[in-house]
Amino acid sequence: MNSNRNSAKKVIIIGGGVIGLGIGWQLAKMGCAVTIYERNRAGRAASWAAAGMLAPLSEVHFEEQELLQLGSMSLRLYPEWVEELEADSRMSVGYKTEGTLIVGIDRDDAQLLQHLYESQKLLDLRVEWMDGAAAREIEPLLSPKITAAISSEDDHQVDNRLMVKALITAYQKAGGTLFENIPVEKIELREGQAKGVWVKGALHDADVVVLAAGCWSNEIGGLPENVTPPIRPVKGQMLALKMESSVALQKVIRTPRAKYATDVYLVPKNNGRLVIGATSEEMGFDTQLTAGGLFELLRGAWEAVPGIYDLPILETWAGLRPGSRDNAPILGPTEVKNMIMATGHYRNGILLTPITAREISSLILTGKTSETIAPFQLSRFSQV
Amino acid sequence: MNSNRNSAKKVIIIGGGVIGLGIGWQLAKMGCAVTIYERNRAGRAASWAAAGMLAPLSEVHFEEQELLQLGSMSLRLYPEWVEELEADSRMSVGYKTEGTLIVGIDRDDAQLLQHLYESQKLLDLRVEWMDGAAAREIEPLLSPKITAAISSEDDHQVDNRLMVKALITAYQKAGGTLFENIPVEKIELREGQAKGVWVKGALHDADVVVLAAGCWSNEIGGLPENVTPPIRPVKGQMLALKMESSVALQKVIRTPRAKYATDVYLVPKNNGRLVIGATSEEMGFDTQLTAGGLFELLRGAWEAVPGIYDLPILETWAGLRPGSRDNAPILGPTEVKNMIMATGHYRNGILLTPITAREISSLILTGKTSETIAPFQLSRFSQV
Repeated sequence: MNSNRNSAKKVIIIGGGVIGLGIGWQLAKMGCAVTIYERNRAGRAASWAAAGMLAPLSEVHFEEQELLQLGSMSLRLYPEWVEELEADSRMSVGYKTEGTLIVGIDRDDAQLLQHLYESQKLLDLRVEWMDGAAAREIEPLLSPKITAAISSEDDHQVDNRLMVKALITAYQKAGGTLFENIPVEKIELREGQAKGVWVKGALHDADVVVLAAGCWSNEIGGLPENVTPPIRPVKGQMLALKMESSVALQKVIRTPRAKYATDVYLVPKNNGRLVIGATSEEMGFDTQLTAGGLFELLRGAWEAVPGIYDLPILETWAGLRPGSRDNAPILGPTEVKNMIMATGHYRNGILLTPITAREISSLILTGKTSETIAPFQLSRFSQV
Repeated sequence: MNSNRNSAKKVIIIGGGVIGLGIGWQLAKMGCAVTIYERNRAGRAASWAAAGMLAPLSEVHFEEQELLQLGSMSLRLYPEWVEELEADSRMSVGYKTEGTLIVGIDRDDAQLLQHLYESQKLLDLRVEWMDGAAAREIEPLLSPKITAAISSEDDHQVDNRLMVKALITAYQKAGGTLFENIPVEKIELREGQAKGVWVKGALHDADVVVLAAGCWSNEIGGLPENVTPPIRPVKGQMLALKMESSVALQKVIRTPRAKYATDVYLVPKNNGRLVIGATSEEMGFDTQLTAGGLFELLRGAWEAVPGIYDLPILETWAGLRPGSRDNAPILGPTEVKNMIMATGHYRNGILLTPITAREISSLILTGKTSETIAPFQLSRFSQV
């Protein structure tokens, strides 16, 4: 049986975000002995800060075809992934399929929207163009100023914070071991092979080491320079409002802005939270909220949905997206044997969790890199 | 000696904000046996939420001549009050005399400013009219859009949170007793006289009871209806930014807006905090922050001083101003003998603390209502 053969396989995962937890959950279910080391609390970095949108095209550029395809594949995995995760954890992850309205507020925005719509049609996506009145029939809270919208039925969402909790539970139920607030100091290499990790001055052996440490991935010691992933933190400020029955959105609203620095999205959750994000700032590991950041978010959200004006603020926060040099994740084997990467998911970590978990666990079990993730290996950065 | 005679006088003050503490400090220094009961933490309601501006005219209407006069008198008391308070408490209260710039952002604002300036000149206030360039010479961070400004050298400020701490210390050093988190249930009346208060089911005697409970003043039991002050909470949302050396204001900036609901002020404190306020909302005892509230504050502050855009947000909060029916405080004796009021200071609590403390403590010691506070008695509301 597979289960018996794999029970010998010891896997250490560095990083307890949705990526590390998702891979760990799959591997533990297959009989591997999995240990996750998380430097902080599990799932409390980018996984927690995210808005949970599952929107392959909205977050990537038309030119990034491979990334778009990866996102679309992961989106298609979502219903089954949610079903399995909810069954294993006995917890809801707040998966919502009401779809997304991408709206244009002023004339320039409408033109931007037109370009986006043409790209989407070229890609054969299931989208519908509509005028402002039609958009307001679907979502009456939209501003009367909105003149055009794209309805995208396939852009779903999940409650990422619930997903974090469900993944921790499912992973541990499957037999996985999770150490929180314990940073990995160094990866142990011998003869070009990863042999384990150093934690609190002690070496822990492993057959495979997975680097899933998000924007801290290049801070782990022991890796040669050419196996250090080019990842940086990209700050995103966000806030959450408390919806009232008279001001309750059903769909995700996105406002790509032609003239403003900050594209805003409004993501209604099942518990009445309305998550609004996000700035995109190159500020290193700084997570301070700023006057301008909150101002742009509030302005953008208010221009799209004026009714939010009177809603109470539940929370404000800033997160760090792990951005790679080309915005795509870094997935697969490296020049160091038994050292696997699953990091740099940037704006798409929640969306890409199912495909990452499936492909990376398969790679670990079979030793084979699938065609799906082949374009996303670290080696692409040295092929210049 | 006065001190001996007054040592027999037992005074209970309901409310431990700056008003109650200020009166208590003065009375304790004169030898009275003073006890303050505070329903929450001392000085953590309106006293804490305030911005600490000492600006008699800016916060009142030209028509409210008596209130303007009271505020001006209190402002003149401030240097001596600060000196005494800092000496007694051995703490700084962050008194700043750099003055205030009242700025006009658009054309309508400039017209509003012109009216304000004419009022100020009629009242013989020490103010100077200047164009935008002159204002920017004084405060280079002001927006290039600003076309007109009034410089008011006499509008000073204090750090109200430091003043709270200094008052608690000075009051207790003078022998005053402070009970926090202990609400007064009821005022004890016998034959039309206040005889003490009920606290935790027990009666505590007093020669004089002072009602200084801010917007909770009409919630104390035991008072006949005609001695219940007409006070309501008026919500104000605020925030504080962290100034950097390159973005550090010296003066208080005020932006009376002709077209916006929210006049914004920016008040730089010695510790690098920049306090920005405030909305004015009739929402009962609600203290939730709202999307619209923060949006107006950030927009207003950014339009006046664009450089705040990148400053980190230190804190956001909402406070409740105790507003009376005519916006003026309620000071002096009532139809209930030995029952003194010092409440309803609305937007001017910090400014009016010295004059209130002086006049109310004098009233308690001498039995005489001064001409200064005579117009502000509760009886004015029944003289219709």
